[in-house]
Amino acid sequence: MSSKGCITLLVEQGMDDLLKEIADKWGADAVRNSDGTELPDCVGDLGMEVYSTLSLTRADQDWAREHEDELTQKFLMSSPVTAFGDTVTVNIMQGWSDQQFRPDARETSRKWYEVWDRTAGKRVPEEKWNYDAENTTVTITGAEKYHVYTVSFLAYQIWDTTSMYNYVTNNWTGEHVRPMDPNQPATREHLKEFLNEWLDKNPQTDVVRFTSLAYHFTNNFDQIDGKLVNRYRDWIGYHDCTSALALEQFEKEYGYALVPEDIVRAGTMSDVNSVPTKKYRDWMDFIQRTVADIAREWVDIVHAKGRKTMMFYCDHHIGSEPYGRYFPSIGLDAIVNPCMSGVELRRIADIPVDIVKEVRLYPYFFPVNLEGKPNFPDGDPVGDCQKYWKGIRRAMVQNPADRIGFGGYLSLAVTRQDFMDYVAVLAEEFRTIKDTAKQYKKYMAPFKVGILNAWGKIRSWIDDDINDWTKPYRGGVQECLSGMNVELAFLSFDEVLEDGIPSDIDVIINMGDAYTSWSGGEYWKDEKLVGMIREFVHNGGGLIGIGDPTAYQYEGHFFQLFDVLGVDREMGPSKSTARWPFEPVKEHFLLEDGAVKEEMTHKKDGVFINTMGTDVILADEFNVLMAANTYGKGRGLYMTDLKYSDENVRLLLRALYWAAGKENELKKWYSENLNVECTAFPEAGRFIVLNNSRTEQDTVIWNAEGKTVELTLRPFESRWVDIGLFE
Amino acid sequence: MSSKGCITLLVEQGMDDLLKEIADKWGADAVRNSDGTELPDCVGDLGMEVYSTLSLTRADQDWAREHEDELTQKFLMSSPVTAFGDTVTVNIMQGWSDQQFRPDARETSRKWYEVWDRTAGKRVPEEKWNYDAENTTVTITGAEKYHVYTVSFLAYQIWDTTSMYNYVTNNWTGEHVRPMDPNQPATREHLKEFLNEWLDKNPQTDVVRFTSLAYHFTNNFDQIDGKLVNRYRDWIGYHDCTSALALEQFEKEYGYALVPEDIVRAGTMSDVNSVPTKKYRDWMDFIQRTVADIAREWVDIVHAKGRKTMMFYCDHHIGSEPYGRYFPSIGLDAIVNPCMSGVELRRIADIPVDIVKEVRLYPYFFPVNLEGKPNFPDGDPVGDCQKYWKGIRRAMVQNPADRIGFGGYLSLAVTRQDFMDYVAVLAEEFRTIKDTAKQYKKYMAPFKVGILNAWGKIRSWIDDDINDWTKPYRGGVQECLSGMNVELAFLSFDEVLEDGIPSDIDVIINMGDAYTSWSGGEYWKDEKLVGMIREFVHNGGGLIGIGDPTAYQYEGHFFQLFDVLGVDREMGPSKSTARWPFEPVKEHFLLEDGAVKEEMTHKKDGVFINTMGTDVILADEFNVLMAANTYGKGRGLYMTDLKYSDENVRLLLRALYWAAGKENELKKWYSENLNVECTAFPEAGRFIVLNNSRTEQDTVIWNAEGKTVELTLRPFESRWVDIGLFE
Repeated sequence: MSSKGCITLLVEQGMDDLLKEIADKWGADAVRNSDGTELPDCVGDLGMEVYSTLSLTRADQDWAREHEDELTQKFLMSSPVTAFGDTVTVNIMQGWSDQQFRPDARETSRKWYEVWDRTAGKRVPEEKWNYDAENTTVTITGAEKYHVYTVSFLAYQIWDTTSMYNYVTNNWTGEHVRPMDPNQPATREHLKEFLNEWLDKNPQTDVVRFTSLAYHFTNNFDQIDGKLVNRYRDWIGYHDCTSALALEQFEKEYGYALVPEDIVRAGTMSDVNSVPTKKYRDWMDFIQRTVADIAREWVDIVHAKGRKTMMFYCDHHIGSEPYGRYFPSIGLDAIVNPCMSGVELRRIADIPVDIVKEVRLYPYFFPVNLEGKPNFPDGDPVGDCQKYWKGIRRAMVQNPADRIGFGGYLSLAVTRQDFMDYVAVLAEEFRTIKDTAKQYKKYMAPFKVGILNAWGKIRSWIDDDINDWTKPYRGGVQECLSGMNVELAFLSFDEVLEDGIPSDIDVIINMGDAYTSWSGGEYWKDEKLVGMIREFVHNGGGLIGIGDPTAYQYEGHFFQLFDVLGVDREMGPSKSTARWPFEPVKEHFLLEDGAVKEEMTHKKDGVFINTMGTDVILADEFNVLMAANTYGKGRGLYMTDLKYSDENVRLLLRALYWAAGKENELKKWYSENLNVECTAFPEAGRFIVLNNSRTEQDTVIWNAEGKTVELTLRPFESRWVDIGLFE
Repeated sequence: MSSKGCITLLVEQGMDDLLKEIADKWGADAVRNSDGTELPDCVGDLGMEVYSTLSLTRADQDWAREHEDELTQKFLMSSPVTAFGDTVTVNIMQGWSDQQFRPDARETSRKWYEVWDRTAGKRVPEEKWNYDAENTTVTITGAEKYHVYTVSFLAYQIWDTTSMYNYVTNNWTGEHVRPMDPNQPATREHLKEFLNEWLDKNPQTDVVRFTSLAYHFTNNFDQIDGKLVNRYRDWIGYHDCTSALALEQFEKEYGYALVPEDIVRAGTMSDVNSVPTKKYRDWMDFIQRTVADIAREWVDIVHAKGRKTMMFYCDHHIGSEPYGRYFPSIGLDAIVNPCMSGVELRRIADIPVDIVKEVRLYPYFFPVNLEGKPNFPDGDPVGDCQKYWKGIRRAMVQNPADRIGFGGYLSLAVTRQDFMDYVAVLAEEFRTIKDTAKQYKKYMAPFKVGILNAWGKIRSWIDDDINDWTKPYRGGVQECLSGMNVELAFLSFDEVLEDGIPSDIDVIINMGDAYTSWSGGEYWKDEKLVGMIREFVHNGGGLIGIGDPTAYQYEGHFFQLFDVLGVDREMGPSKSTARWPFEPVKEHFLLEDGAVKEEMTHKKDGVFINTMGTDVILADEFNVLMAANTYGKGRGLYMTDLKYSDENVRLLLRALYWAAGKENELKKWYSENLNVECTAFPEAGRFIVLNNSRTEQDTVIWNAEGKTVELTLRPFESRWVDIGLFE
């Protein structure tokens, strides 16, 4: 049932002889170059599709050099400066690299400068400050002594972020690449012409692989002793799109003007982790439309020349989120992303648009791997590959991508025959999964789960791990979910407030740190929202809260749905309240697999049970770590944290069945051994069993009718089994 | 240089023969009984002062039984109840023990009932609810579905808290003791008569030992399956004083009425850990005056009969805080408290009134110790005693109490000769310390430290450990300070805002969890306060922040004095901001003793350096745990936590010298070995050296002129040494 194909090879010059052999071995049916590498001349002879990388916004550096006023822009906030007298001078570029930024000194852009007294929380009137463009300083007169001042201003980004990254990380040299803003009318026209010409110059190209579209994610640097130091990085931040032009276009369309503080928000820069304001959500919507309009022109041009388009979902993807409202209108033919986890696989595979979806697997064919350890030729590239593939494979079973690929120097990969052999196996494994999982419906848990946060669909398969500089990245709940036979939806508070909880949702998950966009912050002060969720659970729904669910200190409670969850959290001010004594229960559905044993990595202190009716599942001496509560006909369940592990996948699965009140249905297409997962495709007459561990595993598989079979799986094996085995 | 005396013996009946011998051995010069035990008849013959315990508010239970309307009262809040329809009934006693409480059902007390919609954050108008006194239920009509309601109400406490404690903990039985409110006019008059008669009936009593005065600290119980379960305990909570009468008296005096919510505050009950409102501070002041007026009458009666008065500083001490404004006016002759730490010693010894100060040491002469382990006759009472004495002894050197004592059954103590012998040694050690430390000035560090929180003096030697149900008690910064040669002041935000930072303060410490009265919460939004402290440090002062200093999420910062401290903390919403890279410094004054190695027990996650100019002293992979910063002429220093240990005492000492800019003066009356401390009394010509460890220690002691001597100390030894040794 396997097939060849569906693999893209990043090729390089100078190994023409080997290309055909490798393509045959792996079943590759397309080749591509990367930014900075050229396709070999032989590509036309290989009989494969040719993908060519193109980053339009930095493609024509001659144009960029001549149109410095059309580089991308963004708001920056100066480092805070304390007034020690009644006059204070702020060097607005203090804290920012002048290699990366240049203040927009145009007289007409002065309105995009704002001075704030952060101690008083007040905007300083224009008449009290003066900008000296030559020295990039703002001088404030009549300052309040010992108050802290900041200046927000519009800057040009004069060095492209990816180019900077390559300088900093890969020691690239040469002229700094300048990033063009394709929203500027002259540049916009020019890029279209450029694209037309480029297509003519590259006749071998079948697919234009845009890396990516209009605006890079945010990555702002300072420099210290000449060394670039990262100051702000938001993989999904809407900053590089913030030109004076866009701000004016926005005002015209929306009937109100944004001010710098709407984006800057006291230096937090409307972080994706902060609860978005209505204005910021308007701004996002505006940018998405703007980007879609620009990108559609490019796609049309490519199509007019009989070629196809692909978007690299990274780097310049801001405004082109595939879950956004306007993405379908762009008309792309394919999308590709770098992928090291089940979450990243689903982020591509679940895109609700019928385009080709490709993922770029790891390791990169580089001398060192992502952890900086030896890779090719002296490392363990097979082990490295499997480490990522473990999560991706689980997710592929749920929803496969259409294609896979690898990146880096093929000449390095060939130094390791074991790796070359393994990729052939992996490719075959991928194709067999894809063939069945694309074509047939699978057995799914008898409930649907909604993940509720401030973002909803637009941030599908994204969580608060994405940009966290304060903790180790660990993969969490979404990674567990990515490979489970569970139907998911991503819900936003606004959507729920407006349209109600979708009627097909059985269990809601709210998770994240307090006061973030993920947990929800001030949304939980909304009596309508808490009322809706109380009603939902009271009528039989389930609420799973992880971390600081429904958290907002208000009216004596931190978890606003303390009554539903059965727990609340003490943040300090009422530490005198004696908390109900608790004793973890000895028996509970959640405990039955022995899966509740994983260390809780990001434990929340001070969680206590709200009533004696709450069952404590896990606790340390002072804190409840997991608890289960009944609320009307429904259930509430709290967990302090959940990182991705085989044990926690099982624990979460049990938690979902319990929250949905469907405990009795757990053992359908179920593996007794939690290192093994299985998914059935009844119409195809087969099921797949995944050994997620690196050791041999025995397990018992239950089918939907309660029959069992025993299986033994080789380390890391995936096996397709005929459903007839149960007869 | 020692003396006999200064020891109080808790005696019992039936061991008359031994009493004189024990008194001689220990040097005891006073005897006392406890609540529940009687003095033996022989006390008159011992030639010692006789202390007799008297708790007036529960002394006459016949009167209490006949005046049920004059029992103490307090506000309670019902457990929250969710409305599932538009009518909801709340049993206001749900969550509270009816053995402890009875709602005040008087028609005139109905105004002290309040119904709150906690979901909307709104008081429910009277016309929408009805109280059924018989069933103790409130029925709300026109309720909002899925909103949570609470009822606040005034209740009588019908069972005295200490009596309850003895039932619950010591299995006492018998009639429940009723607590009288001495503020009720009839009771007030009656208690005076009772006291007069009691004095006549107890002619052997030299000192009336009140246990304590008017109002017990808060300790509220529920009962579950008949078992009493603690719900709220605030050792310093102003609740048991809250009668309808007192509330009316308050209104008359202050010109405004309190409402239940002013105390209840959504069920947090104006916890001592929450930032106090102006109204609550008014209420405290009013209660302090009320208690002083009542107690003064009692003291006058005792004095009129030629006897003396002593207050047990525990149990019924609310309103009689010895650091309060009105305490001196009571006219007490002595005060005593239970004491297991240096903090508790200083809490007594530092009382700014010239009265006799006694501490009751541990262990209690009970079969089990405070940890529930065997004590007499089978445990390690000497080791137990030394465990507490270690901290107390350090503090005694700084400021000694006048007397010590023990409690429990003397008949148990005599079962252990080693303990009887050790107490004789300890008593002698105490007396030699007291004799010098009371009489002579000691060498002090060349700076003065102010501890800044919302309470100031009134909560001297009290910190956020006092009522914390969420963490292990560990003793912290104040315990370290209690034995250091450092002058201290307790400052409140209000006082500083009104009068400025006292001119003799060199270093300010602000510490505690965020949003508590200790750290300060919303005070840190006050631009005047942050301005004053910036100015103080900029001009040369020191700021030491521990835990969540100056914390209040506002204008992009969590630590509002981020610039002074050199660090800030990420609470979640701006996790995308890349934080400055940090590398702990290899050399620093703070590190010189090797004392920076203690585990930080209550670590704060997400602390980062605010500028590259901050020196990181200690860190884990993601978080700064300790940092030092220069700010103008002054310094800021951050620590995530500091529990009491020999290492941390030294670390804090270094921190103080560094923050004060006096590093060069550290090595004056200084022990190189950090398990040893020394304090010099130059005018007495001697210094004391304490070995705080249980092992022999070698050390080098520096005098103020830089001369050194080597000493070897026995385990746990304290030794007086002649200053002439340095000649």
